[in-house]
Amino acid sequence: MEKPYVVGIDIGATTAKIGLVDARGTVLVQTAIRSNDTTDPQQFVENLCSAITKLVQKDYDMEQIRGIGIGAPNANYYKGTIENAVNLTWGGQQTIAFAEMITQAIGLPVKITNDANAAAMGEMTYGAARGMKNFIMLTLGTGVGSGIVIDGKLVYGSDGFAGELGHVTMVRNNGRLCGCGKTGCLEAYASATGVARTARELLEATDKQSLLRNIPAEDITSKDVFEAAQQDDALAKDIFDFTGKMLGEAMADFVAFSAPEAIILFGGLIKSGDLIMKPTVESFNSNLMPLWKNKIKVVFSQLKESDAAILGASALAWEA
Amino acid sequence: MEKPYVVGIDIGATTAKIGLVDARGTVLVQTAIRSNDTTDPQQFVENLCSAITKLVQKDYDMEQIRGIGIGAPNANYYKGTIENAVNLTWGGQQTIAFAEMITQAIGLPVKITNDANAAAMGEMTYGAARGMKNFIMLTLGTGVGSGIVIDGKLVYGSDGFAGELGHVTMVRNNGRLCGCGKTGCLEAYASATGVARTARELLEATDKQSLLRNIPAEDITSKDVFEAAQQDDALAKDIFDFTGKMLGEAMADFVAFSAPEAIILFGGLIKSGDLIMKPTVESFNSNLMPLWKNKIKVVFSQLKESDAAILGASALAWEA
Repeated sequence: MEKPYVVGIDIGATTAKIGLVDARGTVLVQTAIRSNDTTDPQQFVENLCSAITKLVQKDYDMEQIRGIGIGAPNANYYKGTIENAVNLTWGGQQTIAFAEMITQAIGLPVKITNDANAAAMGEMTYGAARGMKNFIMLTLGTGVGSGIVIDGKLVYGSDGFAGELGHVTMVRNNGRLCGCGKTGCLEAYASATGVARTARELLEATDKQSLLRNIPAEDITSKDVFEAAQQDDALAKDIFDFTGKMLGEAMADFVAFSAPEAIILFGGLIKSGDLIMKPTVESFNSNLMPLWKNKIKVVFSQLKESDAAILGASALAWEA
Repeated sequence: MEKPYVVGIDIGATTAKIGLVDARGTVLVQTAIRSNDTTDPQQFVENLCSAITKLVQKDYDMEQIRGIGIGAPNANYYKGTIENAVNLTWGGQQTIAFAEMITQAIGLPVKITNDANAAAMGEMTYGAARGMKNFIMLTLGTGVGSGIVIDGKLVYGSDGFAGELGHVTMVRNNGRLCGCGKTGCLEAYASATGVARTARELLEATDKQSLLRNIPAEDITSKDVFEAAQQDDALAKDIFDFTGKMLGEAMADFVAFSAPEAIILFGGLIKSGDLIMKPTVESFNSNLMPLWKNKIKVVFSQLKESDAAILGASALAWEA
């Protein structure tokens, strides 16, 4: 009997999304469960597996599933583990043999990787990077993640943790404290939370009028900045220019590493469209070596936002 | 008839070194010709080929040669070309089909790559990186070059020019002008010429006593700085500390990209030993994400300096 489908799972801090996907990247059916209602990894595995079984068996058959692909924070592709995932209620300071636990519970091969790598995989299989052998995916969400593809393969490095481009140092003196413990990381500036931090800093540093002054500083989100910029708020546009400038500088350094055909931007921040794309591309090209100026594409992800995470994870399962 | 040997060639701005190498990395015989006595690429190819034939035929036979590997500035592995090599008298603003020209002249398969990639290849085949699948080679000479190995393969990227880590931006404001046209590049600081520039800057910026004040500022070389530091000259040691600090910062960012097992340092600057190694490793570890702290080896090249360039190039020839 043929096995024409895979299961893609995206595990976040509050929700785990599960989808049944065919070879063309169609999400046939999907569901979600809470990921933060237990502190016991084994309990979460059981919840997840019963949700998978229920989802599949409604209209399909478990015999039709070739494998399961999972994107999760702090996941290690080589070892199939989730390590020190402090943002997961059942993660914490431990190493969980997650892939193996799922296989034992449900009898299917499992591949696991971190969320940004899963997104890169999805982009390569179904999105803007189809046909590309060398590209870098940057996920600009709450944090900044990356998936690097060289010669058609994801880069995992010697330990499975390669591709932490959100944590290159962009500001060497008095840089912002980053969640990773370092200071001045790209993630502290070019993420959704980074944009909100920039807003608070600029509001305090200047007297410029701004719609953002109508919002309590600590409540400002990147969405507020976007909405203000759409109404031509000068300070809000300065915030995007600042963010794009730094992101472009970082991207130019990444090109010196792997000379990719394209850099693909993904995640919440790209909803800001040209507001973020324009200053990013301008800064990118003016910081590149002459050899690469205006030659490297910068594009937004083409994956449908709601399906992207599941698709990315499912792409892994074809090789499971 | 078996073909047990390869020819390795290292082309520099003034000299081309040619060696006959066996599978164990022994340079059996070697010679050198001038590389700057003609402006005609075809003439240089003929000079080179007649030197190869003469070298081989003295004690060996051209039939024993499997192929030729060449390391040269601005060489493109994919295309077999040397492009815009302004430092070569016969280079300049043109694209030379160098590999093909050699093959036509001498009837052997030819692989060509830039000098830093050749060094990485040599290190992997015969040196400190034997058995390593993931490492980064940094060549600290007149400039800063790099060869990146991921999953046992050199990274060439989408265009054959990947691995320009000497040109990541380390100083974003008022950075030094780099030979590539950008400012603030790592190469402008962590190369032999960068060390000399730092010496001139520090001598001018301070009143500190120093042995280096006995040398006309414009004549100071990195060797002078090394000799002064060996005599416990405080300013000379500051220069190495400054250089190592910046090099370590850059290396920490490189790890975020490919999570290598080791970073291998090569080239003239490593003759300074602990003077450069100590501040580099200290800065490297304090700038790494916690995940990698004290886990990534930093080592000097193990290739014999005089043979290194030829060996590196010859390593390429085994796959020609």
